[in-house]
Amino acid sequence: MSASSYAYLGPEGTFTEAALRTLPEAATRELVPMVSVPAALDAVRGGEAAAALVPIENSVEGGVTATLDELATGAPLMIYREVLLRIAFALLVRPGTRLSEIRTVTGHPVAQPQVRKWLAAHLPDAQWESAASNADGARLVRDGRYDAAFAGEFAAPTYGLEPLVTDIHDARNAETRFVLAGRPARPAARTGADRTSLVVWLRDDHPGALMELLQEFSARGVNLTWIESRPTGEGMGRYCFSIDCEGHITDRRVAETLMGLKRICPNVRFLGSYPRAGAEQGAPEAAPRPGTADADYVAAAEWLARCQDGRA
Amino acid sequence: MSASSYAYLGPEGTFTEAALRTLPEAATRELVPMVSVPAALDAVRGGEAAAALVPIENSVEGGVTATLDELATGAPLMIYREVLLRIAFALLVRPGTRLSEIRTVTGHPVAQPQVRKWLAAHLPDAQWESAASNADGARLVRDGRYDAAFAGEFAAPTYGLEPLVTDIHDARNAETRFVLAGRPARPAARTGADRTSLVVWLRDDHPGALMELLQEFSARGVNLTWIESRPTGEGMGRYCFSIDCEGHITDRRVAETLMGLKRICPNVRFLGSYPRAGAEQGAPEAAPRPGTADADYVAAAEWLARCQDGRA
Amino acid sequence: MSASSYAYLGPEGTFTEAALRTLPEAATRELVPMVSVPAALDAVRGGEAAAALVPIENSVEGGVTATLDELATGAPLMIYREVLLRIAFALLVRPGTRLSEIRTVTGHPVAQPQVRKWLAAHLPDAQWESAASNADGARLVRDGRYDAAFAGEFAAPTYGLEPLVTDIHDARNAETRFVLAGRPARPAARTGADRTSLVVWLRDDHPGALMELLQEFSARGVNLTWIESRPTGEGMGRYCFSIDCEGHITDRRVAETLMGLKRICPNVRFLGSYPRAGAEQGAPEAAPRPGTADADYVAAAEWLARCQDGRA
Amino acid sequence: MSASSYAYLGPEGTFTEAALRTLPEAATRELVPMVSVPAALDAVRGGEAAAALVPIENSVEGGVTATLDELATGAPLMIYREVLLRIAFALLVRPGTRLSEIRTVTGHPVAQPQVRKWLAAHLPDAQWESAASNADGARLVRDGRYDAAFAGEFAAPTYGLEPLVTDIHDARNAETRFVLAGRPARPAARTGADRTSLVVWLRDDHPGALMELLQEFSARGVNLTWIESRPTGEGMGRYCFSIDCEGHITDRRVAETLMGLKRICPNVRFLGSYPRAGAEQGAPEAAPRPGTADADYVAAAEWLARCQDGRA
Repeated sequence: MSASSYAYLGPEGTFTEAALRTLPEAATRELVPMVSVPAALDAVRGGEAAAALVPIENSVEGGVTATLDELATGAPLMIYREVLLRIAFALLVRPGTRLSEIRTVTGHPVAQPQVRKWLAAHLPDAQWESAASNADGARLVRDGRYDAAFAGEFAAPTYGLEPLVTDIHDARNAETRFVLAGRPARPAARTGADRTSLVVWLRDDHPGALMELLQEFSARGVNLTWIESRPTGEGMGRYCFSIDCEGHITDRRVAETLMGLKRICPNVRFLGSYPRAGAEQGAPEAAPRPGTADADYVAAAEWLARCQDGRA
Repeated sequence: MSASSYAYLGPEGTFTEAALRTLPEAATRELVPMVSVPAALDAVRGGEAAAALVPIENSVEGGVTATLDELATGAPLMIYREVLLRIAFALLVRPGTRLSEIRTVTGHPVAQPQVRKWLAAHLPDAQWESAASNADGARLVRDGRYDAAFAGEFAAPTYGLEPLVTDIHDARNAETRFVLAGRPARPAARTGADRTSLVVWLRDDHPGALMELLQEFSARGVNLTWIESRPTGEGMGRYCFSIDCEGHITDRRVAETLMGLKRICPNVRFLGSYPRAGAEQGAPEAAPRPGTADADYVAAAEWLARCQDGRA
Repeated sequence: MSASSYAYLGPEGTFTEAALRTLPEAATRELVPMVSVPAALDAVRGGEAAAALVPIENSVEGGVTATLDELATGAPLMIYREVLLRIAFALLVRPGTRLSEIRTVTGHPVAQPQVRKWLAAHLPDAQWESAASNADGARLVRDGRYDAAFAGEFAAPTYGLEPLVTDIHDARNAETRFVLAGRPARPAARTGADRTSLVVWLRDDHPGALMELLQEFSARGVNLTWIESRPTGEGMGRYCFSIDCEGHITDRRVAETLMGLKRICPNVRFLGSYPRAGAEQGAPEAAPRPGTADADYVAAAEWLARCQDGRA
Repeated sequence: MSASSYAYLGPEGTFTEAALRTLPEAATRELVPMVSVPAALDAVRGGEAAAALVPIENSVEGGVTATLDELATGAPLMIYREVLLRIAFALLVRPGTRLSEIRTVTGHPVAQPQVRKWLAAHLPDAQWESAASNADGARLVRDGRYDAAFAGEFAAPTYGLEPLVTDIHDARNAETRFVLAGRPARPAARTGADRTSLVVWLRDDHPGALMELLQEFSARGVNLTWIESRPTGEGMGRYCFSIDCEGHITDRRVAETLMGLKRICPNVRFLGSYPRAGAEQGAPEAAPRPGTADADYVAAAEWLARCQDGRA
């Protein structure tokens, strides 16, 4: 494992690896599977890897709490890229196994709700047992412990299995969003279709604090794309918020929003601004509200200077 | 399993069972462990159980997504009670095992982040493997598959194990909140220290929709105690919100807030009003804002009637 | 002066009389000019007149403070009608007077800013002196004290004058809004294009009180058409607000807004709901926001009742 | 009249002159009475006077519309000082006149509502006729046209009258606020207890525009001290707002608010930042909200720079 390698949530053959391989630079880097999200991110913190790709959100299961919590605490990391991957499962079996012979199935716990309906319809009597990862489930099938595993079709050759059924997914459009996290440095360059990620802590004695926080965004016309509460670990009822918004830290309206949050919140962690993946697939980026473009900010600052100089 | 039984997330010996046994009525009911949250709630939906106790939120791990998603979809259920349980783990071993002999440990995946620091400090070389539940981990230790399991101390006798270490918890004040869900009926009686639970869907074409939603609460002085976004399953970027607020559906300010949400949101699911557990432990209930008590609502309605009659 | 008469801000020949005569019922009532707005409204309070027509707002000069303050204090009155009158002045002179002979002009102080530009262009050397009313100015011209008076063209015959120039108005579209005020009774019937008038006092110790007040409107999608601060007379910095909004007190969203104001403000005075005059001339009535129609309120109330009964 | 003179709303002997003489620099300047607020301000615009003192607000009568409208339109002017003057009237008579002999009284129309109750109690049969100014009323008493005039006691010697009754005022704490307006230049220096004055035009097609405008203030914790709607002259229902807020244009929170308004409004006119008069008499200046001090802005800007450099 070299300092220029990319770590990822392993083992080999997971969707995370498949997502990582969609990045052009992955072709020229050592890709190192890690046993957990914390392990992958700690490899980056410790300098053993240049960056780590980890899942952050699934369109069926929601936020990946291990990732959210790891990014919110510990030595700071920053997100430089995101990858959207459509999730469809294959049912992997040892060559020759027939559907009617399957008594036990396995897969990652996160996979279960995404294939539950399919299982109920096609293998109503099969027993599910969770594996540590989809790839690990495949390994356990190879070793004869289970009859079939749900995993990405691309995992079949690695484990000597064959895909008996493919494109299994209870929900249409199931996707997972992955982020490439590295040590803090200059954010990714602005592209015009960017996302900014934050973690924000609220003053805990304050009922309207969440409204105030959101007002910092709405007053500047910055659209939230995601908000997820996470416990701070200081007891029931104490939360921080993982927030994604449209725009880049160098967009004036985003910069002013971030400074506004910084002023009213006891803690704000900037997690990066980076190109938005798959803008064409998800909800369209809303047009910025009138008066919130950089040019408007520049014009207003110039006007203010003229007022202060008595030339308005 | 009788129609008057209480189902719970099993197996026996889990924290859920311990929480259930804190309810006085549990002493007189058949208590039936179920293999999953969906199974427990489906038993209620199907009339095989009167109610089910399931975990909904952990102060370290956050919302229990299986519970949130089950309550948000499918045949409606309602929450009638909540139970707060302090979470501390015991390290269960076969009698005679010493700490230095432990090579492998197991437990529910949710337990892992709550004991990670303890493990790093006391068993840095032990290998963790997840079990389907804490109680299942205990069973696997009894069967010799692992050396030790993290579980509630109360689970030890059931599995012929002994607690080698007790009161293990990385976070101070770790608690889990459980809810008792039944089929829809009249809400629990108002006590004056109540909580109301909802699921709210936003109009998805609308950037400021979350602000508007929160404004329905803030305009009436109703305090949110929890908000958690959950994917709707219709694709990345589509969310609904599980929301808890202070107060009871028969409080006028809560009733008006609910109606306000109903008017602006495409869908609102009322999940119940019920006595707030452990008010003394968590954040104190904020005093209602001036002008939001029932008496204020009554006075305002009488004034309006006088205005409409020309007697103001 | 009979109890069924209509009082108005006199003397005869003012724009107020002209406005009053646009009301069909004016043809069958005794119309009594009064010396001041307070005198006109006190005649109603004392039962000597059934109602009084007084100016409340001019599109050039703004709110008529005497009217606003009289409606805000003293025995309550209610507005049942409004009349919009286009304001254009005639320059009235004694028969035979030529423009070049005019050295002194008079008129009501409110008229002056509406003819200032015309005066500067056509009678730059004429001296202006204010009269108690436009009609009084005409009288003073008749009596030889001034050479010319600005008044409504309709005032000429009353005072034996002739209109030397007509249709004088510095601002295009100058209009005055008049209200017909009576003693409190049932509001005028709802027409679907109504206006509701209020006076609202703020809690004075509270910086964000005005925002909270406006939020009661915006949270229910009720559009303000006018807001005017007026001193309460309790010292600099103490204000109440005269507010007009779209809609009728029997519109559910307006009723709920009124009750919301009543709850958060130390005092609210309902001044009536009445048909909106000249909707076609002024700003168009904004379409009600989705979710704010009466049907939405009814549906939400029914849903709430089902929730409270366990039938949602 | 020299270019260094101060103009004021005359004639001599008015409250405006009394207010002007409270300014130390008035002692060394030529003070020139003007016939009207527009005349006084035009003298400044034309360079014939260095500044003009005009009334802007009375605690009983509200805003002085001539001043508000003159400052809102025409060549820009800026406010550099304000003066608060307690208003109490004297009843001025020709020497020897007794109260019982008074049949006619005069004074400025604005004085009338401030002495109405006194008149009703002490001179119920006296006839009121308005004069162009309080001082002009005193002149007309000297000339024998009326028996008594309400004016400032200080006006008595100028007109050879004597104050028969002093300290007449219907409202306790009646005050008038005057502003000293000059041509645009650098604002007055910040003192820490400042006021900033603005005129703001709204986008007229937009129902929630006033809320958005106020949100620019509230989002930055800037307190409004006054808001007054004024017609734009473009027809009924079109308003601009004269606004005073606490703080100085060089306060960061005020500067950011001004820029925010500039971005969302079609027009903003900055009328100056200047020391707040009589802070001890009026409502106390509210403590700035946490997170809105200059130091908070500086800290947030530094944090943002670190984020942009990857050093946060």
